[in-house]
Amino acid sequence: MSVKKPIVSFKNGAFQSIKDDIVTEFPLTIQVNGEEFATMVCTPTHFDEMVIGFLASEGVIRFRSDIKNITIDEERGFAYIDLVEGKTINNQSDFSKRFIGSCCGKSRQFYFQNDVQTAKTSTSQTKITADHCINLMRKMQENSHVFKGTGGVHNAAICTNNEMIVGRADIGRHNALDKLYGHCLLNKIPVRDKILVFSGRISSEVLTKAAKIGVGIVLSKSAPTDLAVQLAEDLNITAVGFIRGNSFNVYSHPERVLQTEQ
Amino acid sequence: MSVKKPIVSFKNGAFQSIKDDIVTEFPLTIQVNGEEFATMVCTPTHFDEMVIGFLASEGVIRFRSDIKNITIDEERGFAYIDLVEGKTINNQSDFSKRFIGSCCGKSRQFYFQNDVQTAKTSTSQTKITADHCINLMRKMQENSHVFKGTGGVHNAAICTNNEMIVGRADIGRHNALDKLYGHCLLNKIPVRDKILVFSGRISSEVLTKAAKIGVGIVLSKSAPTDLAVQLAEDLNITAVGFIRGNSFNVYSHPERVLQTEQ
Repeated sequence: MSVKKPIVSFKNGAFQSIKDDIVTEFPLTIQVNGEEFATMVCTPTHFDEMVIGFLASEGVIRFRSDIKNITIDEERGFAYIDLVEGKTINNQSDFSKRFIGSCCGKSRQFYFQNDVQTAKTSTSQTKITADHCINLMRKMQENSHVFKGTGGVHNAAICTNNEMIVGRADIGRHNALDKLYGHCLLNKIPVRDKILVFSGRISSEVLTKAAKIGVGIVLSKSAPTDLAVQLAEDLNITAVGFIRGNSFNVYSHPERVLQTEQ
Repeated sequence: MSVKKPIVSFKNGAFQSIKDDIVTEFPLTIQVNGEEFATMVCTPTHFDEMVIGFLASEGVIRFRSDIKNITIDEERGFAYIDLVEGKTINNQSDFSKRFIGSCCGKSRQFYFQNDVQTAKTSTSQTKITADHCINLMRKMQENSHVFKGTGGVHNAAICTNNEMIVGRADIGRHNALDKLYGHCLLNKIPVRDKILVFSGRISSEVLTKAAKIGVGIVLSKSAPTDLAVQLAEDLNITAVGFIRGNSFNVYSHPERVLQTEQ
């Protein structure tokens, strides 16, 4: 998703007017039951998946069937969602309120109230071999050439332990993950034993989103943060990072990563 | 800012337990006049700068002198801010409300109400030569080796047209910019004729933040989005991207970028 624009290029010591591909960034405002809920700035593809994944990860819905109606007005940049009878949004201002955990409980790394309710401790039984870790990252990257030339979108995919099921891209890291989550909800794809492959850093927010989607293994090209590693330990998620060439690092729950198939 | 953690590394076909540097991610919750305002997830340096820059970019304050008291509780991850007598926060829920501009007005690319009030159209008279564009990017990158090894923080600097004044780094792109903004407010550094140098993509949010800080020229190693380019055109900001080796692209207001000094 890009547009051609006139720019001035400087190369070999000289200026030149050329046309270049510029990546598209699109603001989509979500209204739930007639109330403004949030504005997402995104790559304009798969709006329905993104909105459904976002609402699920925010705890507004749990299933596609919690939504009576969804209408996307692409021209004005609005998504209108009606929830089924009886379903309402909790007090919205509490969603991003700081969560202060007890000292001895689990999951004290959470910092938002909302995450405590929606992120799940993984019960995944899936294992993955070292070769499959490397192959899945390669497959996701090969699949994501759509945006080459404009640079810098985040790519993400839901995979079995050796095949890609669905891949999505977005300029916003969270949006790419929300699109995957929405895709799985819309198509009733069980995620507990799937693997999330991601091009960007595993921040605490990305790890939390992975826990909300419900996967047990997260593979990334980049490094995790210390907070993400602590969350992954707490939530029983295997975090694999720095998958480059034929090497990688396992930051949490390495028992799911095997040398060879059992 | 990183911590050593035990990890499992896979290299040359074998697993090995090693210790590795993991980048730190820290949640800081900001309370203004006793009310929770926001939680920022950040690299824990320059808290005061970051909080002041963030509150200024959100339109809560305009100057350092609007704050009576600022206390950072690093252990618990809280920043307590008391505004001077008479100053209050506007209705917080309106801050991120969608802004619908008129069809024929300026700056209709804004999508948040708050930005309409705080982002300024640049009146900068500063010009920059092609060589200085390339040199400033090189200087910022040389300055930012603190985080090498852990990878992936965003670097930003405020510069004159050939010297760096201050550089900041953060895992959050906005935080790096907020730290710079806060630094300039705390030290009463006028920014109108300064240049913002940034390692990451120029998204609409980054461009808006640059307009709030008040600079007229933004230099980036990466590409801008189409929405950022439109905003830059509207706000009279020169956006330079893809500064790599000896070449770059000018995406808006190229009249400020010169072949040689005048």
